Amino acid sequence: MSGTGRALKRLVVGRAMRSDRLGETLLPKKLALPIFASDALSSVAYAPDEILLTLGTAGGSFAFTHSWQITLAVVCVMAVVVASYRQNVHAYPSGGGDYEVATTNLGPKAGLTVASALLVDYTLTVAVSIASGVQNAASAMPFIRGHQVIVAVLLIVALTAMNLRGVRESGSFFAVPVYLFMLAVIALAIVGVVRKLVGDLPMSETAQFTLAPQPHMDALSQIAVVFLLLRAFSSGCAALTGVEAISNGVPAFKKPKSKNAGSTLLLMGSISVVMLVSIVTLANWTGVHIQDPDNPGSLLLHGKPVLGYDEDTVLGQLAHAVFHGFLPGIIFVSIVTGIILVLAANTAFNGFPVLASILARDGWLPRQLHTRGDRLAYSNGILILAGVAMLLVVVYDAEPTRLIQLYIVGVFVSFTTSQIGMIRHWNRNLRSDDPPTSRSRMKRARVINAIGAAMSGTVLVVVLLTKFLHGAGYAVAAMVVLFALMVQIRRHYSNVSKELLLAETDDDQLLPSRVHAVVLVSKLHKPTMRALAYARATRPSVLEAITVDVDPEETKALQAEWERREIPVTLKIIASPYREITRPIVNYVKTVRRDSPRDVVMVYIPEYVVGKWYEQLLHNQSALRLKSRLLFTPGVLVASVPWQLRSSQGHEMRYDGPAPGSVRRGGR
Amino acid sequence: MSGTGRALKRLVVGRAMRSDRLGETLLPKKLALPIFASDALSSVAYAPDEILLTLGTAGGSFAFTHSWQITLAVVCVMAVVVASYRQNVHAYPSGGGDYEVATTNLGPKAGLTVASALLVDYTLTVAVSIASGVQNAASAMPFIRGHQVIVAVLLIVALTAMNLRGVRESGSFFAVPVYLFMLAVIALAIVGVVRKLVGDLPMSETAQFTLAPQPHMDALSQIAVVFLLLRAFSSGCAALTGVEAISNGVPAFKKPKSKNAGSTLLLMGSISVVMLVSIVTLANWTGVHIQDPDNPGSLLLHGKPVLGYDEDTVLGQLAHAVFHGFLPGIIFVSIVTGIILVLAANTAFNGFPVLASILARDGWLPRQLHTRGDRLAYSNGILILAGVAMLLVVVYDAEPTRLIQLYIVGVFVSFTTSQIGMIRHWNRNLRSDDPPTSRSRMKRARVINAIGAAMSGTVLVVVLLTKFLHGAGYAVAAMVVLFALMVQIRRHYSNVSKELLLAETDDDQLLPSRVHAVVLVSKLHKPTMRALAYARATRPSVLEAITVDVDPEETKALQAEWERREIPVTLKIIASPYREITRPIVNYVKTVRRDSPRDVVMVYIPEYVVGKWYEQLLHNQSALRLKSRLLFTPGVLVASVPWQLRSSQGHEMRYDGPAPGSVRRGGR
Repeated sequence: MSGTGRALKRLVVGRAMRSDRLGETLLPKKLALPIFASDALSSVAYAPDEILLTLGTAGGSFAFTHSWQITLAVVCVMAVVVASYRQNVHAYPSGGGDYEVATTNLGPKAGLTVASALLVDYTLTVAVSIASGVQNAASAMPFIRGHQVIVAVLLIVALTAMNLRGVRESGSFFAVPVYLFMLAVIALAIVGVVRKLVGDLPMSETAQFTLAPQPHMDALSQIAVVFLLLRAFSSGCAALTGVEAISNGVPAFKKPKSKNAGSTLLLMGSISVVMLVSIVTLANWTGVHIQDPDNPGSLLLHGKPVLGYDEDTVLGQLAHAVFHGFLPGIIFVSIVTGIILVLAANTAFNGFPVLASILARDGWLPRQLHTRGDRLAYSNGILILAGVAMLLVVVYDAEPTRLIQLYIVGVFVSFTTSQIGMIRHWNRNLRSDDPPTSRSRMKRARVINAIGAAMSGTVLVVVLLTKFLHGAGYAVAAMVVLFALMVQIRRHYSNVSKELLLAETDDDQLLPSRVHAVVLVSKLHKPTMRALAYARATRPSVLEAITVDVDPEETKALQAEWERREIPVTLKIIASPYREITRPIVNYVKTVRRDSPRDVVMVYIPEYVVGKWYEQLLHNQSALRLKSRLLFTPGVLVASVPWQLRSSQGHEMRYDGPAPGSVRRGGR
Repeated sequence: MSGTGRALKRLVVGRAMRSDRLGETLLPKKLALPIFASDALSSVAYAPDEILLTLGTAGGSFAFTHSWQITLAVVCVMAVVVASYRQNVHAYPSGGGDYEVATTNLGPKAGLTVASALLVDYTLTVAVSIASGVQNAASAMPFIRGHQVIVAVLLIVALTAMNLRGVRESGSFFAVPVYLFMLAVIALAIVGVVRKLVGDLPMSETAQFTLAPQPHMDALSQIAVVFLLLRAFSSGCAALTGVEAISNGVPAFKKPKSKNAGSTLLLMGSISVVMLVSIVTLANWTGVHIQDPDNPGSLLLHGKPVLGYDEDTVLGQLAHAVFHGFLPGIIFVSIVTGIILVLAANTAFNGFPVLASILARDGWLPRQLHTRGDRLAYSNGILILAGVAMLLVVVYDAEPTRLIQLYIVGVFVSFTTSQIGMIRHWNRNLRSDDPPTSRSRMKRARVINAIGAAMSGTVLVVVLLTKFLHGAGYAVAAMVVLFALMVQIRRHYSNVSKELLLAETDDDQLLPSRVHAVVLVSKLHKPTMRALAYARATRPSVLEAITVDVDPEETKALQAEWERREIPVTLKIIASPYREITRPIVNYVKTVRRDSPRDVVMVYIPEYVVGKWYEQLLHNQSALRLKSRLLFTPGVLVASVPWQLRSSQGHEMRYDGPAPGSVRRGGR
C-alpha cells in the first residue's frame, strides 16, 4: 500500500521537509504588503462613501464643506495607529497579535476581551467587504443590481470552498490584484488631478442632484452638527480596519523581521492615506452625492425626489467621471475594486481560524479548533465564520452602510487594549536597567503607544456614542456573549482536568483481576466471525457471544447455524420484552459487572467501514447508540471490530493541503 | 446501583408485563372510533370549502346550483371505498395496511408505490390539517389572522415535542374532542335544519356578496364546465382521506377484531357522510360564498370588489349564522374544529414512523428507522415528518386551499393499488376449493373490491387530470423520488449482505497469531492510567504506549513523568512534522501491521464520558476522528476506554415511554 510508503517518508523526512520549506515561504516586503494590506487598503473603497453619506443626511452642500475635515481627522488617527503598531512590531518580533499583547501585559481577561472583539470583527470584515465588493462590481455590471444578496452569499460560499480546500495565500496569486488596485486608484487620482488642472474634469453623474436634509436635520442645532460630524468620523474610521494584520504576521517576514514588518506597515499606512485623501478630494471636485440607503428619495432633481435611482459607489462614480469616454478604465477600476474587497474578506478567512486555534490552545474554545496543522481544526473555524457572515449579509441585505454600523467597534476595542498593553510592556522593561540609549528609545515608544491608546480610546468612545443605536450595540452584545461563553468553556476544561489529576499514590496502577469478553452477534456473517476470531485471539478469562432476541424466528435460525458451524463459543440469548436492542445489552453487561466487580468487561462490536458519509447513515447506527450507552458503565471497554466494505477502499485518507493562515504565520 | 435492579426486573418479568399490558390496551369500538377516525372526520372541516371555492371560480350562483351534485358524487365514492375497505379488514385481521396488501398480492414494487404515496400523504395530512385548523381557529380568535404561518409552525413543533416524549394516544385524552366535534357539527346541522323549517335561519355573513367569475370563466364552454365540476369533485374527495387508517389498525381492536373494525369503519363512513351533506346543505341555505385565495377581490358587493376582507371557513360562517346571537356555540364549534384538526395531524405522527419502520424492516429505508420499541427509531421518523410538514406550511403560507392541490393523489394511489391487490387476493383464495357459501362470500367481496378499484382508479385519474398543474405534480414527483431512493437503499443493503455472506468453508475461523496492543497517551492522567491498566489486564503479546510529539516541551515533560512513575510500559514517541495527530498514529499502526501482518493491532483510546451533548463538543473530537481513520486499516481493533466524568452521572438511560403509533398497532 503506497499510503504506508508515504507515511514512512513523512515520518523520516517530515521535519527536514518542513524546515526546507520554511525558508522559501518567508515573505519579502513586496509580497507581504499585498498579503497583509488588502484588508486595510480595500477599506478606502467604502470609507469615503460612508463619510459623504453620513454628512449628506444634513442635506445641501454640508457634505462638501465638511468631508475634508473628517478625512483629515481619519488621517491623523491612521498616522497615530500606524506609528504605535510599529512599536508592537518591534517589541514582539514573535508576532505580537493584539490578543498576545493584551494577555501577556494585562492578563487573560483583557486578552479575552480583545479576542472576542477580533472574532466579531473578522466576521464583519467578511460581511462588509463582500457586500461592498458586490456593490462596486454592480457599477460595472448593472445586471447584478437587485441580486446583491444572492451574489454576496455565493461569493462567501466560493471563498469558503477555496479555504476549505486549503488554498495557499501564495504571493503572486494575491499580490497582482492588490497592486492592480493601487495602480487603479493612483491612476484615477493622477488623471483626475491633471484634468482638474487642465480644467476639463467632468462632473459626476450625481452632481446634477441636490440632497434633501432628512427630517429633523434641516434645522441643525450646534450639538446636532457636532454629533453628525462625529458619526461621519466614526464611519470614516472604517479606513483603519486591517491595520493590525501585519503585527500578527511578523514571523512570516524575511529577516530582519521587525524592521521589514515595520516599514511595510508604514508603507501601507501612507498608501491608504494617499488613496483616501485623493478619493475624497476628487469626490468633492466632481460633486459626488451619496444618499442614505435607509432614506431613499433624499436625492432631489430640481427640488423633486428622484426615485428608483441607484447611485454608484464613490469610486464607481469617480471612475465614470475621471475616465469619462474611456470605458476600459471605468470597468478596470470597478473590477479590481471588487476583487481586492473579496481578498480582504479572505484575510478574515485566514485570521479567524488562526485566532480560534490560539484561543483553543489556551482552553478558551473547544479543543478541536486547536490541533495545528490538522485541516479539520481550521475547517470548523472557517465554517462558523462563513455561516455567521452569510447570516449578516442576508439580514442586512448586503447593504454595506448598514453593516458598517456594527463594524469598527471591534477594531478599536482591540487597538485600545493592545496599546494600553504596550504601555505596561514598556513600563515593565524600563524597570530593568538597560543602557540609556535603549531606555530613551523605550521611553519614546511608550509615549507613542500612550498617544495611540488615548487616540484609539477616544475613537472607540465616539464610535460607541454615535453608533450604538445604529447597530454597534449588536456588535457589543455579540462580544459580551462570546466573552461569557469562552469563560464558561475554560472553566469546564479546568474542572475536568482537576477531576482527572493523578494523585501521587494512585490505585489505578493495580490491574483488574480478569477480562470478561462479550461478542455482540446479530447475524452470522463475516464481520461476526472476525469479531469472534479477534476476541478469541486476546485469550480472555471468559468469552461469550450474546444476541438479543428481537425476532424469535431469526434467533432460532441463528442458534441452529451456530451449532451447525460448531463455533467454539457459547451463544447467550438475551430476552427483549420490548424488542429493544440497546437496553437489554446494557443491562446484561451491568449484571456481569455486578457479579464480578473486579473484572473488566470487554464488549466486541462488529462495525462496518463505509466509503461515503451517506452510507454511514445506513449502517452502525444501533452499534453507535449501543456504544454510547455502554460507556456510561464503569469497568466496560468497547472494542469496535471493523469490517471494511468494498466501498471503503480508496477513502483511507482525505486531502490535506496547507492550513489557512499558514503563510501569515510563517508556517509551511 | 438501582439501574441494575431495574434491569434484572425487566429481564425477568419483561415479557409478562408486556402481555399483561396488551389486554388492557386493546380498543373497544367507542375508543377506536375517535382514535382512527379523527383524520377522516376532520376532513369535513375543509372539504366543503374546497368544493364551494372551486365552483365559485365560475362566479355567480354556479356554486349553489352544482355543489349538491359534487357532494353526491363524493358520498358515492365514500360509500364504495368504505365498503371495499371492510373487505380488507376481514381478509387481513392481522392489520392489512395498504402497503401489506399491495406487497403480498402485487409484489414489492406495488407495495413500494403505495408506501411512497402514503409517506408523502402523511406529510400532507400534517400540513393540511394544521393549516386548516389554524384557519378555523382564526374565525373564533381573529387576532390569529395574518400570523397563520407562525401559529401553524408552532403547532407542529408542539406536536413533534409531544410525540418525541412519547405521548400515548390514550383513548380518553383523544376521544373527548373527537366526540365533541361530532356533537358540534350534528348540533349545528339539527339547529340549522330546525331554524330553516321554522323559517328564521339567518343568512351567512358572505350571503350579501356575489362572486365575480374569474377571467376566462365568464363564458364557460361545455368542456370548461365539466372540467370545473371535476376539479371541484377531486377537491371534495379530500373528505375521504384517512379512511384507510382503520384497516392498518385491526390488531388494536377488541375481539372479534375484524368484525369490530368493520363496523367501526361503517360507523365512521356514515358519520362523515351525514356531516358532509348537512354542511353543504346549510352552506347553500345560508348563501355562503368562498373566494379563491389566489384570486382575492372576486367577492363583489353591489358589483364592486371587496378588498381586505377575509371570509371565515364554511364551518365558521355556518356557526355564526346558525348560532347567531349565541356566542358560546360559535366559539365552541371553531375551537373543537381546531382541536380535531390538530388531532388529525397527530394521526400522521403515529402513522408515518410506523410505516417507516415497516419499510426499514423490509430494507427499503435505513435500518435505524426500524428497531421496534426503540424510541430513537421513531424519533427519526417524527423529525423528518415534522421538518417536511413545516417546510410545506411555510412555502404555501399555511393556506389549506394551496396545500389541498398536492393532497389526495397519494390517498387514491394507495386506495387503487390496495383494491387491485384485494382482487388478486380473492382470485388466489378462490382457486382453493372451499365450501360454496364462503366461495360466494369471496366472490361478493371480489366484486366489491373490483368496484372499489375501478372507482378509486377513476378518481385518481380525475385528480391527476384536474390538479396536476395546480400542484399534484409536485406530490407525484415526490413519490417518484422516494420510490427511486428506497430502491437504491434496498440495493445497497442487499449488495452488502452478499458481500458479508459466509462461505461454507470460511478461513475467518483461524485465529490471528498475536495481539499487539497500543495505548494512546496524550497526558498522564487518570484515564490514561486506566487505559494502561486495562490494556495490561488483557495480557497482549506486545504492549506499548505511544504519544504524538506535537509540542516538544509537553512531550519532554510527559517522558519525565513517565519515568518518575516507573510505569512498566515503554512509551514510544512519534514525530509529527506538521503537528498533526491523526495521520502519524494511523501511519504508525499501518507500519506495525505491515511488519507482522498476522497480528491483530489493538489500539486503546481513552475516552471521556460526559452528561450533556454540548460537553461532547468539548471532548473526544480528536479521539473520534482518529478512530474513524484507524478503522479503515484491516486487522486493527479500536478499544475505547471510557472515563466517566462526574457530569455523566445520572445520564445512563434516557426517558423511554411508549412508541408513537403503538396503540394503533395494538402494542403496549
